[in-house]
Amino acid sequence: MIRLSTSDPAFDRDFTALVNARREVDADVARDVRTIVASVRDEGDAALAAFTKKFDKHDLNETGWRIEKSEWRAAYEALDPALREALDLAAARIAAYHEKQRPADSDTTDAAGVRLGARWNAIAAAGIYIPGGRAAYPSSVLMNAIPARVAGVERLAMVTPTPNGEVNPLVLAAAYVAKVDEVWRVGGAQAIAALAYGTGRIAAVDVITGPGNAWVAEAKRQLYGLVGIDMVAGPSEIVVVADGRNRPDWIAADLLSQAEHDPTSQSILFTDDADFARAVAAAVDEQIGELSTAKVARASWDANGAIIVTASLEEAIPLVDRLAPEHLELACDDPQALFDRVRHAGSVFLGRHTPEAIGDYVAGPNHVLPTGRRARFSSGLSVLDFMKRTSFLQLDPASLAAIGPAAVALAETEGLPAHAKSVALRLD
Amino acid sequence: MIRLSTSDPAFDRDFTALVNARREVDADVARDVRTIVASVRDEGDAALAAFTKKFDKHDLNETGWRIEKSEWRAAYEALDPALREALDLAAARIAAYHEKQRPADSDTTDAAGVRLGARWNAIAAAGIYIPGGRAAYPSSVLMNAIPARVAGVERLAMVTPTPNGEVNPLVLAAAYVAKVDEVWRVGGAQAIAALAYGTGRIAAVDVITGPGNAWVAEAKRQLYGLVGIDMVAGPSEIVVVADGRNRPDWIAADLLSQAEHDPTSQSILFTDDADFARAVAAAVDEQIGELSTAKVARASWDANGAIIVTASLEEAIPLVDRLAPEHLELACDDPQALFDRVRHAGSVFLGRHTPEAIGDYVAGPNHVLPTGRRARFSSGLSVLDFMKRTSFLQLDPASLAAIGPAAVALAETEGLPAHAKSVALRLD
Repeated sequence: MIRLSTSDPAFDRDFTALVNARREVDADVARDVRTIVASVRDEGDAALAAFTKKFDKHDLNETGWRIEKSEWRAAYEALDPALREALDLAAARIAAYHEKQRPADSDTTDAAGVRLGARWNAIAAAGIYIPGGRAAYPSSVLMNAIPARVAGVERLAMVTPTPNGEVNPLVLAAAYVAKVDEVWRVGGAQAIAALAYGTGRIAAVDVITGPGNAWVAEAKRQLYGLVGIDMVAGPSEIVVVADGRNRPDWIAADLLSQAEHDPTSQSILFTDDADFARAVAAAVDEQIGELSTAKVARASWDANGAIIVTASLEEAIPLVDRLAPEHLELACDDPQALFDRVRHAGSVFLGRHTPEAIGDYVAGPNHVLPTGRRARFSSGLSVLDFMKRTSFLQLDPASLAAIGPAAVALAETEGLPAHAKSVALRLD
Repeated sequence: MIRLSTSDPAFDRDFTALVNARREVDADVARDVRTIVASVRDEGDAALAAFTKKFDKHDLNETGWRIEKSEWRAAYEALDPALREALDLAAARIAAYHEKQRPADSDTTDAAGVRLGARWNAIAAAGIYIPGGRAAYPSSVLMNAIPARVAGVERLAMVTPTPNGEVNPLVLAAAYVAKVDEVWRVGGAQAIAALAYGTGRIAAVDVITGPGNAWVAEAKRQLYGLVGIDMVAGPSEIVVVADGRNRPDWIAADLLSQAEHDPTSQSILFTDDADFARAVAAAVDEQIGELSTAKVARASWDANGAIIVTASLEEAIPLVDRLAPEHLELACDDPQALFDRVRHAGSVFLGRHTPEAIGDYVAGPNHVLPTGRRARFSSGLSVLDFMKRTSFLQLDPASLAAIGPAAVALAETEGLPAHAKSVALRLD
């Protein structure tokens, strides 16, 4: 963890280093992924079975390729009732939030008599990737599947690896709640390639979303263009802007909730109170040892954590914008005043009673958010990622006479005579 | 040009071959582009000058790096008045159409007392790429720059190669009309890398859009994630669905307006009238020789053109959906009835008096559209490509008490104790 203060003479240099630090794994996976993707494209299910045997250590022809809906329902029904209710509440709230994202069509006729519009449609088929093993999160199933369902996608195929053949029942239960259509026991770059190209068993989809390791992320990147993808994702991060009147243990837990995800995660506190900064650092040290995730959280906090003391909370905001964080908490009395000045952040949590984790699960907004400063130009996952827009035009002889000559002039100057002719013929 | 009929026994096989035909250039440019991108990242302006000397055959330190606004204005003022008016009309109509795309923010409080919302902001800086030389289109400047301006982007940098140092005055005039902020005389993969990483002279941008050759497209693909990009673009295409009551010469001109772009372009006619099909084929042959673009148009039409006779116009629609064309004309008496059944198309042109070319220039909708069947999952360029959404949440003790326990249950089951603790501490 580093400690900075905007009053330090070297602050600019040190903060710039923090902004530019790359936390993304640089493993040279691109070549491996190219090989895997080409194999699945050319050999389909046979390649899928071979890679699954190699990486996930089970034989799909023995364990089964697909997990049937009866098994998802059984997994859901076997859950502790409180957990079942929690999943149902989360699903209902996520659906309600995403319903409001459905875009409106337009269809108008302007003064020149030109009819102009745009019409939105759902994509036909989506694939969602859900990691297997330890980091198998039912919340990821809900956050990826529900926007697709709200968009009106007809076919929703989930792929998830089952290392050593072991299925994660929480993920199955979430698939049941989120109403996916298919669950396939495949993972890694090979599963992404199967969804993109289609195989004998798995039909191709149009858009692929969902979290994954470096191989999965690279496969999505390589296949972007053949299919749509959600985003290029990196390690998770949180920035907390807090005054000295917060409880240090609350803020410490918020910082650790990000740190416990992965050693490459990042947690940063901005505060205008140096005593509070020290108290939070102490609370982090106190809490960290109690966590079952202590090893990961400590690695992340040690390597990537930061506490930055500013002269005022307002002074922190332009610094936050440079970080363009995935998650931003504004823990103070008038969070709206600060929020009004924030430009780049994936999701913002206002006030002292809005811990970031509430947004990970049940509040409603999507937890798939831009990382690595990408909030400068991209947004969290939404219904729009599963829809596309068709623009349309309709002219009649009068409206074509009004605007056609300008098109003819521009086409001629661009050296495109057939463009000009297609308009000019209709002007005679 | 191939001729198919849905009544042929081999139709399914032949049409599937047409759908799956790859028209994209397979040149192995990825390695070259990686080298160029790395050089610009590491050596900045020096690499930019060296690549410009090599590929564009001029010395930036002699010709100048930047073209000043006074030159754009001079280019605009030197235009033929009719052309100036055509550019102004196009810009005004494009701006009017895109104004309606500005998304609405949301901010509501639900029954549980949870405040939920989403706020849209423009990205800070955009870069647009405009090809130089023959295929330098002022319309591309308008179509890329105006949505960015409408979005509220503060800094809009245009890059365009000037082969042998020659500047295209039409492109400069369009830059003046579209109110870009900077014009740089650089092109190719090196210009994309300069915009993405920034160099001593050219500041980095957040999003890069605009057409380009295979090197430019590959550079955008490689840098996607560091910056946002518009899309992975391929050769242009048009599908025309027309009954026998159209003028064959009109429809022939429409088909040729796509064919004249590039030998890889594709033009396809669906009609329910075999006589009309023959008449259009004859009209294409008649018109093609008269075009200054004859060589390109003939290469495209011979290699990729198709005329498909169907039993009815309705029968054509599911086939059109399989092609998911960039441009679709519906030339018949009741185009709306057909349009209601279309699902996958970039832009649709309704009726006999709406040639596709009117949309390329002055109608208003964007002419940057998904190609190569990507209309299944992506949309034309819009104001949204230059904006991003921040979701937000605000809870108070009562609303956190209502939904917090579900978050704690889910966090615990996912094995993330700090997530659970950050909520649970606030429930005490």
